[in-house]
Parts: sequence; structure tokens; C-alpha cells
Amino acid sequence: MPLKKTVNDSHSNWMDGAGPESDIAISSRVRVARNLADIPFPHLLNNAKAEDVIHAVRLAVEDKELARQAGVLEMSLLGELSPVERQILVDKHLISPDLINSFECKAVVLRDDEVISIMVNEEDHLRIQCLLSGLQLKEAWDLINQVDDGLEKTLDYAFSEQLGYLTACPTNVGTGMRASVMLHLPGLVLVKQLKGVLNAISKVGLTARGLFGEGTEALGDLFQISNQITLGQTEEEIISNLTAVVRQIISQEKATRAALYKDRRDFVEDRVYRAYGILKNAHILSSEEAMRLFSDLRLGIEMNLLSGIPAKLLNELMVRIRPAFLIKLAGREMSAHQRDVFRAELIRNEFKEFDC
Amino acid sequence: MPLKKTVNDSHSNWMDGAGPESDIAISSRVRVARNLADIPFPHLLNNAKAEDVIHAVRLAVEDKELARQAGVLEMSLLGELSPVERQILVDKHLISPDLINSFECKAVVLRDDEVISIMVNEEDHLRIQCLLSGLQLKEAWDLINQVDDGLEKTLDYAFSEQLGYLTACPTNVGTGMRASVMLHLPGLVLVKQLKGVLNAISKVGLTARGLFGEGTEALGDLFQISNQITLGQTEEEIISNLTAVVRQIISQEKATRAALYKDRRDFVEDRVYRAYGILKNAHILSSEEAMRLFSDLRLGIEMNLLSGIPAKLLNELMVRIRPAFLIKLAGREMSAHQRDVFRAELIRNEFKEFDC
Repeated sequence: MPLKKTVNDSHSNWMDGAGPESDIAISSRVRVARNLADIPFPHLLNNAKAEDVIHAVRLAVEDKELARQAGVLEMSLLGELSPVERQILVDKHLISPDLINSFECKAVVLRDDEVISIMVNEEDHLRIQCLLSGLQLKEAWDLINQVDDGLEKTLDYAFSEQLGYLTACPTNVGTGMRASVMLHLPGLVLVKQLKGVLNAISKVGLTARGLFGEGTEALGDLFQISNQITLGQTEEEIISNLTAVVRQIISQEKATRAALYKDRRDFVEDRVYRAYGILKNAHILSSEEAMRLFSDLRLGIEMNLLSGIPAKLLNELMVRIRPAFLIKLAGREMSAHQRDVFRAELIRNEFKEFDC
Repeated sequence: MPLKKTVNDSHSNWMDGAGPESDIAISSRVRVARNLADIPFPHLLNNAKAEDVIHAVRLAVEDKELARQAGVLEMSLLGELSPVERQILVDKHLISPDLINSFECKAVVLRDDEVISIMVNEEDHLRIQCLLSGLQLKEAWDLINQVDDGLEKTLDYAFSEQLGYLTACPTNVGTGMRASVMLHLPGLVLVKQLKGVLNAISKVGLTARGLFGEGTEALGDLFQISNQITLGQTEEEIISNLTAVVRQIISQEKATRAALYKDRRDFVEDRVYRAYGILKNAHILSSEEAMRLFSDLRLGIEMNLLSGIPAKLLNELMVRIRPAFLIKLAGREMSAHQRDVFRAELIRNEFKEFDC
């Protein structure tokens, strides 16, 4: 069962740190909302109808032609997983926190490499997501399109000629698409210019969120920049607008880092190496502090102030140090303090081999 | 010239970390105040008379019999040293800050191992000091006695049958002796019990000061415990009272550390290893922060939470990281920021060989 593999491994394809602009753009995500015609939206469904949706989607994803074109997709019912395992899927950004609030009659479809995931019976009947490393919105959209086209051969989507794809929440109607890029912006945070940047993007219909979506804090200087509007623009326009704005933010972050390197190198080096020293030696670490230190360290790696630590490891650790994965690793429940001690030990062990 | 050797080497005998109770008692110091009969106290001296004092002391310390019994003592005029070099003598605790406020007609006498030093024309004509590692007040007093007896064969001390040794400041009259022990008390500071301890000792005629004497802050959890009273007690009583109280403080500190080890080991380990990680990696370090980190690290060494770093090095570094020694090492004046960068580099280099 691929889901069991997924929840036992903190790695996911998007963490490779290998895509374009991956020194600043950690990952790109595109998701589309789709609903089946003639079936009420999930919040109005009884269990029997919800099971019908799952059944219909299962048939669609098991289509051999789709598998040949877009890769093998496997469906699992959320009820088959433990609460900790469900949370790990959220922490890996494969499903939304909303999906696991209640897990009855809910399912997730995963491609083996975790690049494609489909949530069934979240806010909409289907939410198809593609998650790639670096700045690859266009590539993610192409993959989504492939899967979406394949599914549409079997499934009858709720679609209006006038409005486009119909969705449970009107803010998704139209393309039903949301695209986002996770950016690491420690330079702009450091020189206190980020607020200005975020104000500016809100004026062009974009929004910035924390690491775990709406309403979450920007842990570790990570920001998800996404489109707000799904209506009145084609998917291609949304993708190309967002890509253009993200490129601009990336170049601002780069300019800031260059200025920091030139004018305040001591200061940045101190910050980076302290983070390294603490991660390598601390015996108690909260996830908030660890994320802050990862951010400083990542900045150092990207500014070539320090080498030998792969960005991929830091991406994976962001998931591995979260409570769910720690509990999975330890094989037992832990208090917050016990987790902080276990987290520090885990990080020390990972950092043992480095000598920066 | 031994003074040139002294100011080029941050090490001093008292830093060996080898004496009794040296896990908590860093060093023991005894000093006596002596004045020459029929010559006004230093603050009333003109230069000619002050030179006479220096001349008389020079003759006395060059006495062959004294050298045979108490070691070779060499006199240097403070005017022969640069301001930075004078400050280094203060930082090594060989002379007082007061002596270098004006250095005209002032001299210092040093034994090669720096265990014995004599200030000439500080507040009194002579201040004879003995500084040893660990808790060795009795041993320090014996050495002082030897030197004092030897000098008295040549010098005519101002002495009153009724009052004892006469001193410029009445608080020193009588024995003219002050004894002190430098204690490292991070445990009592951590559990906020130190204030109670200091209140208690003030009731038995003792006082606690910071690392650099009266009015200085207790940097790095280091406290100098000394006698307040010089009149009405014999030297032996002063030494034995102070030793008894210090032993009691040491046992309180030990009990606190044992309790910390038992109940809050994670917390202490975290603190100790963070200090290690920061010292090993920081690129900017103020002397205040470095002293705080040394204190945490020393606690870890003494509690066997970490090994391989000699206490002797930490004692030496306390002197080496001070502005004067840094400037001496760099061979140039530096801004406060440049010193912080240089200090961090110096500490990183020292810590390179450790892998705790």
C-alpha cells in the first residue's frame, strides 16, 4: 500500500531542492477543484452518496489509459490510517488539514512519487494537486491537465458554460484552480522589506500565507504566494502572472542577499553559524526554533557561506521534526517536552556527519 | 624583562585549575597592605618621595636572601609599559585597576610564576599579593608571610602596637590583609538562591564582588568572596573563617548541581551544549556573552556532561578575550565590533580541536 510507504518516509519529490530557482523557491503547487455533476457538494452529502463519489473516483483513477499517460494512481481511504499517519500526509503537504478533520468517507489518491495527489470529498469532490520542486508552475499545470483530462474521460464534471467548473465555495468557481509557490525569504524579512512586498502582491490579486496554508504563521521565513482569483482568467494567465510576480520577488530577495553579503557579511555569517552550532548541539528544540534555525542555515547554504549540508535534508527535516513524524519514529506518544528532546536528538544525529 | 613576558602570555599560575576544590573555587588571593614609616601615604606623596619609596622597595626585593627563600622578584616601572600592556596586568588580576589610573612613580614587582605580585605606590606604599589556583587561602597566606618577613628585614614598616599595620584607608588598618576566593556559582544563580547566600555572608563580615573587584558586575557567574574586616582578628582567624564559609558555599553549589543533574538534566545539557555550539561557531561575540557561555560550558565540564575541554583553557580565555589582550594579539587598535569579530575567531580557533 503506497500510503504506508508515504507515511513512513519524510521524503517527498518536492523536497529534492532540484528545480529551477530552488535556492529561493522551495516548491510549486497547482491544484484544481472538480465536482461530479448531479451529486451534491461534499458538505451536503450523506455517507451513501459520499461512498458513491469515492467509488466513481476509484474507477476513474484505476483506468489503464490514465495510468499509462499520467502514472499509476492508488486510492486509500483515510480511515485506514492512524491519526498520526493522517497528520503526516498534511505535514508533507500532500493533503489539506481540512481533509482530516473528519475522515469518514474521505479518500486520498497518490502517485508513487507523491507529485500527484487527489483529495476525495474534501471541500469539493475532487481536489487534484501537483507538487514539484522549485519554480515549476507551468510544469505542474501540465501534469494536472494530463490527469484531469484522463479523469474526465470517466467522470462527469459539474461544469457551466458561463461560469466554468462549479465548486462548493464560490471563490473557487471558474478555473477551480489555485497555484502557489513556497518561497524562502529570509533576506527580505531581515531587512524588514517583506511587508512592503506582501502589500504590493495583494494589489495584483495574489496572497501570501504561512507554511501550512491559510491562517498559519510564516514559520522559518517561508511564504506561500498564491492567486486569489479563479474567475475571469484562464489557467494559463493565472500561471504566467503568478510566475512573473514570483520571479520579481525572487530577484528582490537575491538583491537583498547580495547587499547583505556586501555590507553585513559578519552579521549574516554569525547568524548562520550560530544556527549550525545550535542545531548540531542543542538538547531541547521546539519546532518553531528549529524552523527558525533551518531558515538561517538555508540562507547560509544559499549564500555559499557554508557548504556540505544539502537543502534536500532541510526540506525533509521540516516534515520529520513535526510532532506527527516524531511520534511515528518513536513509536509512542510523547509530551511536548519529550518531543523537544527527541527532536533535538534527531537533528544532532543528522548533523553529526557535517563539519562546517 | 619578565613583565614583557607576562603581558604576552594570557596564562598565569592561578589559571591552572589544579588546586583543591578547583571545580568551583577558581582562585584564592591574599594581599596585605604595608607602608613605610615616616613617609606620607601615596596620595600625599610628591614625585621625589614616591621615587624614594620605589627605590627602597627595589633594594628590598633585590635582597639575595629573600630571593633564595621566596623566589626571584623583579621590579618594573609601570611607565615602561604601553596602556594596553598595563591593562593586561589588570585583566590577569596581577595588579588593581587603580594602579594604572595614573602610572607615574608606580611600580609592580612580579615573581616569575606570577604567584607573587607587589604593587608599589597604589593606595599604600606596598600591596603584596599572592594568587593561587583553587581554594588555597592558607597556602597563599604562608607565601605572603614569607615575602613579607623577607621584605621587613630591609624595610621599616609603619606599625602601631595598638592598631597594627597602618594603612592609607582605615578599612585596611590592623592586619592590612584582605583575602578572597573567586567562586564559580552557576548552579546557585540558576536556581535563584545566590541572593540568599550573599545576604547570609554579609552578616558574618564577608562581602561578594564581581570578577574585577569592587563595583564590577558578576560576569560569568563568578563571585569574589572576601573579608570586610581587617581589625580585631588575626590573619589566621580571617583565613580560617573565610575558608570555612567558602567551603559551605561550595557544598551548597555542589548540592544544587546534584539536584539539577537529577531533576533537570535535559535543561542543563541543552544549556551546556548550546554554549559549546555557539562558542565553536559564532562569528561575533561580545566579551559579556563569551563569559556567559564559558560559565555554561564550565558547568558542563564540572558536571561531567561534556569532556575534553580543560578548565585551564577557559581560565586563560577569560583574559585573552578581553579588549587589551585582543589588541595586543592583533597588533592594532580595533573598534568594538572588530573586537567582537576577532574574539569570535580566536575562540573558534581554540575550539577547532574539540569534538564534544
